[in-house]
Amino acid sequence: ASTPSGPGGRGWGQPSQHPRDPHLFDQDKEYVGFATLPNQVHRKSVKKGFDFTLMVAGESGLGKSTLVNSLFLTDLYKDRKLLNAEERITQTVEITKHTVDIEEKGVKLKLTIVDTPGFGDAVNNTECWKSVADYIDQQFEQYFRDESGLNRKNIQDNRVHCCLYFISPFGHGLRPLDVEFMKALHEKVNIVPILAKADTLTPNELNSMSLPLFWFDFKQQIHDSIPFAVIGSNTVVEAKGKRVRGRLYPWGIVEVENSAHCDFVKLRNMLVRTHMQDLKDVTRETHYENYRAHCIQSMTRMVVKERNRNKLTRESGTDFPIPVIPGANDTETEKLIREKDEEVQRPHLECEPEFVWDWGILHIELSDSAQSNCGNECVHVTEHTYTQSPA
Amino acid sequence: ASTPSGPGGRGWGQPSQHPRDPHLFDQDKEYVGFATLPNQVHRKSVKKGFDFTLMVAGESGLGKSTLVNSLFLTDLYKDRKLLNAEERITQTVEITKHTVDIEEKGVKLKLTIVDTPGFGDAVNNTECWKSVADYIDQQFEQYFRDESGLNRKNIQDNRVHCCLYFISPFGHGLRPLDVEFMKALHEKVNIVPILAKADTLTPNELNSMSLPLFWFDFKQQIHDSIPFAVIGSNTVVEAKGKRVRGRLYPWGIVEVENSAHCDFVKLRNMLVRTHMQDLKDVTRETHYENYRAHCIQSMTRMVVKERNRNKLTRESGTDFPIPVIPGANDTETEKLIREKDEEVQRPHLECEPEFVWDWGILHIELSDSAQSNCGNECVHVTEHTYTQSPA
Repeated sequence: ASTPSGPGGRGWGQPSQHPRDPHLFDQDKEYVGFATLPNQVHRKSVKKGFDFTLMVAGESGLGKSTLVNSLFLTDLYKDRKLLNAEERITQTVEITKHTVDIEEKGVKLKLTIVDTPGFGDAVNNTECWKSVADYIDQQFEQYFRDESGLNRKNIQDNRVHCCLYFISPFGHGLRPLDVEFMKALHEKVNIVPILAKADTLTPNELNSMSLPLFWFDFKQQIHDSIPFAVIGSNTVVEAKGKRVRGRLYPWGIVEVENSAHCDFVKLRNMLVRTHMQDLKDVTRETHYENYRAHCIQSMTRMVVKERNRNKLTRESGTDFPIPVIPGANDTETEKLIREKDEEVQRPHLECEPEFVWDWGILHIELSDSAQSNCGNECVHVTEHTYTQSPA
Repeated sequence: ASTPSGPGGRGWGQPSQHPRDPHLFDQDKEYVGFATLPNQVHRKSVKKGFDFTLMVAGESGLGKSTLVNSLFLTDLYKDRKLLNAEERITQTVEITKHTVDIEEKGVKLKLTIVDTPGFGDAVNNTECWKSVADYIDQQFEQYFRDESGLNRKNIQDNRVHCCLYFISPFGHGLRPLDVEFMKALHEKVNIVPILAKADTLTPNELNSMSLPLFWFDFKQQIHDSIPFAVIGSNTVVEAKGKRVRGRLYPWGIVEVENSAHCDFVKLRNMLVRTHMQDLKDVTRETHYENYRAHCIQSMTRMVVKERNRNKLTRESGTDFPIPVIPGANDTETEKLIREKDEEVQRPHLECEPEFVWDWGILHIELSDSAQSNCGNECVHVTEHTYTQSPA
């Protein structure tokens, strides 16, 4: 770049008047101002608001509802009706959706909790994860239809961003059902395994548990250290004159937010404070993109087949365009499909360099009492429930 | 929500030990943490970096290059070769693209300037805006192909986010060519009209200029106050002992960044510091969506026509799926098309309530000397030029 220079020795230049902003140039010296771009993005995101869809899965009584209420300081299951033993015999896996609008420091979050009551509770649980997988696929399909449609202005995005999967502490590690569930779903959704009711395990027992999560490729660094177990409770107890959330036993108080007792705080930090946006981005960029690519591949193959069949029967030589990939011919399409097949896309959480993951074997326990502990900064605006049962 | 309560009178609870984090609960009291979401978005946007594509249009010599260099404190036209009178006779409108990576306070911006040398310079300028409109459409088309394709990981987005259109100060307002240009393009791109070389006009002359920009629906509030004129200069002169960018005349110094002299600062504030992200969002959500809807409508109509023709000739009754709108049948598709046709989408910049627009008739003057004035915070990383001529 050339060096700027003033006219220097020329004598006829008179300093002009500065009626206002005399120091403007000095203040803004050599500052274009595009450094404000992240702030523009920040402001627009606050104005628009956020949404997050969290799925909880695992057998009844492991404290799924309590953990969710503890995490978001809300009461999502006010009108929940627990089934009696007789009713449970005929119960099938259903999917329920609770949505709540919460606000904190001016930031609005539309939180949707997708629950799977009845999961793993039957005598024969063969393919009971199927309705969960179907639900996730249906949301992808709906979004694919919407984003391929004409009017994309008010698309409602119901894609599941994260699934907390609850593992029983009594199984000496993973049971076959757990393995099957995670095998079936880990390429569709970000799974965070939770070791439930961990206050029945001493630290030694926790450490000696064998949890071969080999198939879980969530993040390289935490490959060996998940699942993580957290203690949740919505009951406030007194400890050392302070009111803390925890569980009161004759032998002591389990404090939920004490990281020596459990790693509830670590889970919350990951899920809400540092990686909520990451979980959304991975859902959008990896899980959804994989689903979409498979869809397009089958559609393209179908159309190519149709076209070839029609070439034999039709009289006119007009060709149909291949849908969705405008401009690509047969060979290009097949090449793209091959490339895509070869490219194994695994879910991979983006690693923020300033945040070092430190997930040990964490302990979690989930209290049965689902009392809400709603703070002042949490404003409930609306709450509605939508229930979907598989046909 | 129910009120949380401790066990109260039960006597056997002992306060537990607090080996670490004794104040954790108090510090984080009733704070979930999703208020960090905008910061997560902020951090990710900085990490990813930004891009912006700015088009400049207007006849030669109005100072387009100087204004761009003044705005971004860079030197985008180092290797520009000015044509002589003979060469200009055969010159047609071409489109050149300059890209520069600049950085400011850790924020990276990939700035692309699309220039239109030769625009309006010929004897007969009939439809000389056509190559500009074609260029914009081509970028939309390329993006439509890319976002409809299988692999959407590394899409390069070349859509034009803003067009600075330079109006000559000698025309007593808009000339027919100006009107035709803006009529043809204002539904494809955000146009910001610039009154060039405004230091040839006194404030009274500026105010009396008739500029009927009725067709420009950029923003309701500024409907009456655009175009705005700005003075640009890359030459540093001394005024009152201070070094400022400006133009030195025997009768005084025109200071570029003095808002009593001109509104260069206002243009820069709008374009870079407050509404750069808005211009990108309007391009994406309105201009591109309109282009895409028209594309889909023609494709759908074509396929429906094909299908009907084939129904007469084909023996098999198999139907082809309509491309791009999976699941929609003929009637739905036609209904959607009708709805879309009825919905007149006009470009509309989002109004930030905290930012009140204050565009008067601004004065701009564009110095001829295209000297770069590159500050310390501007780091040039790469620069490449790509030239595209219409066939």
